[in-house]
Amino acid sequence: MIKTDIYGIVFNKLKSNILDDWKNYTQHEFVERIGKGNLERRLYLKYLMQDYVFLIHFSRAWALLIAKANSVNEMRLASKTLNSLVNEEIQLHVKTCNAEGISEEELFKTEEELNNLAYTRFVLEAGYSGEFLDLLVALSPCVFGYGEIGLKLKSISKNDNQYIHWIDTYFSDEYQKLCISVGELLDKAVKDRLGNDFENNIIWPKLNKKFLTATKLEINFWEMSLKLE
Amino acid sequence: MIKTDIYGIVFNKLKSNILDDWKNYTQHEFVERIGKGNLERRLYLKYLMQDYVFLIHFSRAWALLIAKANSVNEMRLASKTLNSLVNEEIQLHVKTCNAEGISEEELFKTEEELNNLAYTRFVLEAGYSGEFLDLLVALSPCVFGYGEIGLKLKSISKNDNQYIHWIDTYFSDEYQKLCISVGELLDKAVKDRLGNDFENNIIWPKLNKKFLTATKLEINFWEMSLKLE
Amino acid sequence: MIKTDIYGIVFNKLKSNILDDWKNYTQHEFVERIGKGNLERRLYLKYLMQDYVFLIHFSRAWALLIAKANSVNEMRLASKTLNSLVNEEIQLHVKTCNAEGISEEELFKTEEELNNLAYTRFVLEAGYSGEFLDLLVALSPCVFGYGEIGLKLKSISKNDNQYIHWIDTYFSDEYQKLCISVGELLDKAVKDRLGNDFENNIIWPKLNKKFLTATKLEINFWEMSLKLE
Amino acid sequence: MIKTDIYGIVFNKLKSNILDDWKNYTQHEFVERIGKGNLERRLYLKYLMQDYVFLIHFSRAWALLIAKANSVNEMRLASKTLNSLVNEEIQLHVKTCNAEGISEEELFKTEEELNNLAYTRFVLEAGYSGEFLDLLVALSPCVFGYGEIGLKLKSISKNDNQYIHWIDTYFSDEYQKLCISVGELLDKAVKDRLGNDFENNIIWPKLNKKFLTATKLEINFWEMSLKLE
Repeated sequence: MIKTDIYGIVFNKLKSNILDDWKNYTQHEFVERIGKGNLERRLYLKYLMQDYVFLIHFSRAWALLIAKANSVNEMRLASKTLNSLVNEEIQLHVKTCNAEGISEEELFKTEEELNNLAYTRFVLEAGYSGEFLDLLVALSPCVFGYGEIGLKLKSISKNDNQYIHWIDTYFSDEYQKLCISVGELLDKAVKDRLGNDFENNIIWPKLNKKFLTATKLEINFWEMSLKLE
Repeated sequence: MIKTDIYGIVFNKLKSNILDDWKNYTQHEFVERIGKGNLERRLYLKYLMQDYVFLIHFSRAWALLIAKANSVNEMRLASKTLNSLVNEEIQLHVKTCNAEGISEEELFKTEEELNNLAYTRFVLEAGYSGEFLDLLVALSPCVFGYGEIGLKLKSISKNDNQYIHWIDTYFSDEYQKLCISVGELLDKAVKDRLGNDFENNIIWPKLNKKFLTATKLEINFWEMSLKLE
Repeated sequence: MIKTDIYGIVFNKLKSNILDDWKNYTQHEFVERIGKGNLERRLYLKYLMQDYVFLIHFSRAWALLIAKANSVNEMRLASKTLNSLVNEEIQLHVKTCNAEGISEEELFKTEEELNNLAYTRFVLEAGYSGEFLDLLVALSPCVFGYGEIGLKLKSISKNDNQYIHWIDTYFSDEYQKLCISVGELLDKAVKDRLGNDFENNIIWPKLNKKFLTATKLEINFWEMSLKLE
Repeated sequence: MIKTDIYGIVFNKLKSNILDDWKNYTQHEFVERIGKGNLERRLYLKYLMQDYVFLIHFSRAWALLIAKANSVNEMRLASKTLNSLVNEEIQLHVKTCNAEGISEEELFKTEEELNNLAYTRFVLEAGYSGEFLDLLVALSPCVFGYGEIGLKLKSISKNDNQYIHWIDTYFSDEYQKLCISVGELLDKAVKDRLGNDFENNIIWPKLNKKFLTATKLEINFWEMSLKLE
């Protein structure tokens, strides 16, 4: 059993309310196959290309979060994540894809599939239409889910797994620290806006629904990644 | 062959560039079955309920268009459409659903499916992230496509078709006039922002892509409507 | 003493917390001179022209409110106000200005002064960056303040006051009903998001600040209206 | 004569169209007094405190720009500026104010004056309502104007000027490089959206107007900074 208490109180509450969906996401067949190292290479490549497009829009959403922050501190924490996305994670994808023989030019031309588009547009729209917390909660399943997946797969994978580099990325101290930092941002943001007794706040159910929808869209993303168009 | 020249120059250009997708949308199996009157009733009801949720978010997008307008005239034309959506079309759905034994309360509780959500969030996000024209183009396939479908189905359907009321709604003078009015709004808006030679404007391809994506999301909506979860 | 309890609970709470600023707004010298009928005509005309530009952006903000609504009911109530702004109040300004010898063309070319721009951009940005309630509260001082001013000035003005038509507009049943309807929208929206005990909700002070800032920007608008550039 | 050709083609075109206003901004009395070192200390402190609040909202606007970018490259360039604002420039203000005996706590409580608020809300709203270019142009006068002021004041100021540290900040290689980098971002963004013949593009006048308004709001900011409330 992977312990993710370190990701904070709010995340663990949100997750505990939708445990079945959360498992369908973090233990999806695509994830299992990565862990066993038996995912078809061409499916992995397809996933990487779609994920490149995903990361661009996901970064835009983190930028929007900064625009919606209430304090310099929130801005600073969110801009740390944004920075690691734009200047590191996206670059990593470019590098990984290059190693797979996919040039950056091809990556730029990747046709965004509808399941991919659905997810990022949902997150961005949640942010534009709502406020800081709506957006941060919609961003959460991706951040924390990948953290959990990194921990879990590392514990069961062999070192000769062809996808060990991918696993190590999300198992890494760096990524785990990012999760902890986002968890703190979320806990503090919820406390500032909903109070200590946040679970009894009238808008808590709305946030749970956002979290659930984003989790379902993660599942949809994996489904898409198992199919070649 | 249905003549929709009346919907304006820009719409017809946009459509002519993606004719295959446009046909897949406006002549989709779901549409054909409505026209023949042999769509299963429970599929029709499911569609109505999802479309109710769709119309709410679609109306929000028309409201956003007003917020992004450049002139009082654009505001007035867009608010006419918004008004007909919020005060007439949504009401019509409530009424139709009531007649089918679905109370307004049930309608309000409809679980929005992901293909439905994908479409409206794409449109809203196009509006929030872009400007007036990005949004208006993203709104176009729905408005004009239903106009075309109304004209086409009326010409082939018998009066005892169980869905004749639905067909008449989009065939009606009122709806066709709305299409013409939106067509004029689009033509003027494009001329004001891209100039008369709009097809050679550097951002024209971007608008075409928005139109194509929205059309694909319409197809996705019909696909969803043929399945019971 | 003008009774505005009819404008609802939330408005009266917000107002009671900033009574001095509220008086500086609703009993501003510009307002007093309108009531006495001794405001210079050219100041009145300047005000009308700036207010025309104001109303355009104010209407955009009401449209944004619809885009940010949580329910069909909120959309319907807000769209009623939007409609009355776009199709009636702006038209009224055009007509009044025409009668004063100012053509619609001149009105369209009015150079927006910075105090005017400050107000509407503050309101719109409050809406874009925040959520429904941030925006509705920022819109409130204008709606309710003019309602109070209409009631007050009518009670002290003579019928031969050259500005009686302006006073009657805001004293009218139609405008007073609008205020009551917006008051209900505000009360319900606050209850739905902050709960019944809204004054103890952690974000209540933030809403008070928005209300205060908008009120100060109203005062700034009157200040501007007393000066010819 | 300060040469700012290095800030790029588009900025210099925008500036050349509003030279008088540009001078009123960059050679404002407040700036002159900084250059001569005879600005009252308490006015300088007031300016620093207001500018701290300004920088927070200005950073939010740069974050919004990233959310509205069309390419990874635009995102990367804008996020470099955002980073330097959030992690360096704001910190510098805190440090400078500390040295002046103003604690960070006091800074956080600074009452935002209306001329200050007007400026940042105009910029943010331009971004939310429009697209990338509307926002980037609205952000430009501040970035480039301070660059010009740094160059100019350094060339005329003595080293024992009490404000030499402020002058050096904007004269520094680091700040000048930022201006050059933003100039390149602007040139490329205009070319990508308006084409090479951008001055004949139908929306060019709209961008000029945004640039002019932001420049006027800079002048307003200096005016405010010469007055103690």
